[in-house]
Amino acid sequence: MTLANRQLRLQSRPKGLLAPGDLQLNESPVPELGDGQALARVKYLSIDPTMRVWMVADTYLPAVPLGEVMRALGFAEIIESRHPDYKKGDRVTGLLQDYVIVDASAKHFLQKVPKIPFVSDTVFLGVLGINGLTAFFGMEIATPKKGETLVVSAAAGATGSIVGQIGKIHGCRVVGIAGTDDKCSWITKDLGFDAAINYKHADWKQKLAAATPNGIDIDFENVGGEIMQEVLNRMNLHGRVILCGLISGYTKEDPSMASLGTILLKRLRVQGFIILDYASRFMEAATQLGQWKMFGKLKDRETIVEGLEKAPDAINMLFTGGNTGKLIVKV
Amino acid sequence: MTLANRQLRLQSRPKGLLAPGDLQLNESPVPELGDGQALARVKYLSIDPTMRVWMVADTYLPAVPLGEVMRALGFAEIIESRHPDYKKGDRVTGLLQDYVIVDASAKHFLQKVPKIPFVSDTVFLGVLGINGLTAFFGMEIATPKKGETLVVSAAAGATGSIVGQIGKIHGCRVVGIAGTDDKCSWITKDLGFDAAINYKHADWKQKLAAATPNGIDIDFENVGGEIMQEVLNRMNLHGRVILCGLISGYTKEDPSMASLGTILLKRLRVQGFIILDYASRFMEAATQLGQWKMFGKLKDRETIVEGLEKAPDAINMLFTGGNTGKLIVKV
Repeated sequence: MTLANRQLRLQSRPKGLLAPGDLQLNESPVPELGDGQALARVKYLSIDPTMRVWMVADTYLPAVPLGEVMRALGFAEIIESRHPDYKKGDRVTGLLQDYVIVDASAKHFLQKVPKIPFVSDTVFLGVLGINGLTAFFGMEIATPKKGETLVVSAAAGATGSIVGQIGKIHGCRVVGIAGTDDKCSWITKDLGFDAAINYKHADWKQKLAAATPNGIDIDFENVGGEIMQEVLNRMNLHGRVILCGLISGYTKEDPSMASLGTILLKRLRVQGFIILDYASRFMEAATQLGQWKMFGKLKDRETIVEGLEKAPDAINMLFTGGNTGKLIVKV
Repeated sequence: MTLANRQLRLQSRPKGLLAPGDLQLNESPVPELGDGQALARVKYLSIDPTMRVWMVADTYLPAVPLGEVMRALGFAEIIESRHPDYKKGDRVTGLLQDYVIVDASAKHFLQKVPKIPFVSDTVFLGVLGINGLTAFFGMEIATPKKGETLVVSAAAGATGSIVGQIGKIHGCRVVGIAGTDDKCSWITKDLGFDAAINYKHADWKQKLAAATPNGIDIDFENVGGEIMQEVLNRMNLHGRVILCGLISGYTKEDPSMASLGTILLKRLRVQGFIILDYASRFMEAATQLGQWKMFGKLKDRETIVEGLEKAPDAINMLFTGGNTGKLIVKV
């Protein structure tokens, strides 16, 4: 039997939001397995802001070449194997789409994951995956102390929502910035943030000031632009800025800029951060994250979109504020 | 006998370079000494870029109020004393102008300094003073490693020239950026920098690239603006930026900005830095600096301007590139 492989390929580099045709769905036969190969079938794709960056520019990874399969982080099961390290039923995460031939090359960054009772497979793309790891190591860089004030932007997103909860574990006062009242309600009522600011309200700057009466010690920055500058304006001396993402700029031509005078006079430490640098410590972090998850200290929510053909729309949701928590495409 | 006290007072806040009348010279009688007071006579004033900031804005110190004596760092001798801690002939540095009554208050930040044979008094305003301390602690934050490339801007200035020499002590490849060929020649031939770039040459960016074949690991930033952005463009992953000064912006309305995308993608650490935070460790640093100076590892040069009435012109020299090394007004 020949299996059909459905894959999104990058046909043109988007300007602004993705336009129809930037990603095109193609079908091709799944190749026959050779010795030392296994066949993985992707069940879920993680939808992340960084994908928009991969579509246009060489950054910490090269841009996806035009015509190539779009890079995505996926959860997959091994459905057939002639590879010594994988057997049928093994579960993996990695850079994958639909059916993938797995061999000895490292290009897919494959990571075996366990089956945990009562835990959904998608957790390996979220709390126990890229977002949990990003929150964990970013907060390690932030050196939070009990009683300090942490502000996190894109606070109801997959990473931001975990960052805030880790802040609470460390005893910080945690204030999240998000773009709808529903998101604000979720992070305060369900996740335990001390306050949430909807930046679409006209008086959001006053509300941020009221929510941070002792100033801000840590900015976990996922957004950039005007929101970030306002947070910088309220930073305390010797504050730390974890520069994790700049999503406000990913669909624009203008790069996000920050005032160097603010950084200098407040003696801030601004640390750029890419999670791949911490690959050798992923196991250590996942163990801690799994423990917190098991004891109910990390709650999550998922927005699941059905069908690979909806992936381009899902990517746009990240920039229009359509998702709460982890955004997943069910293939 | 009544001594005449000549002091510059801030009469108006400058826009751009200082204009005649922004600082005005006034004479007033030196007050009689009371019990617990001493009289210090300033011999030298340190002229530093931060003075231009003090003239216009509240920053890490409040702006000098209009009509008040201009804040300056000076070297003085005690010429009369009814204060238990000071005797005639004692030598001090602090925030001083001309004759100053010293008492138990801390407002002058007085620091006694020793008499060292064969060493000029002005060294306590430069290599063993504010500039040496700034270079020392800034380089401590930079965590230089042998073989790394350090770039310093305003490299022939009082601080930059010491930064580069400390970089050489740590085994770094040191590249300085300055604004005249004479300055470039001084820092390479006399101070031992590996290369110097005159940023006024049209091809300075190519020359910077040629002088940093392995990229840049540390940017000791005194300037900001276009020069800094070009240095950031050549930074290596995980580089460190010591944000010490932004002199290119001090006489302009536009604040210096930096691209956050560059900081994020290169995983840079940008650390704002004000030397006053390290006051409790000044002795430790001065001891090390003195040792380096004694063994010929720190060379310096002074530009000395005679007469307090020339101090406003001297401040402007900092922004027009008129001085090499430490700029001093001899009162």
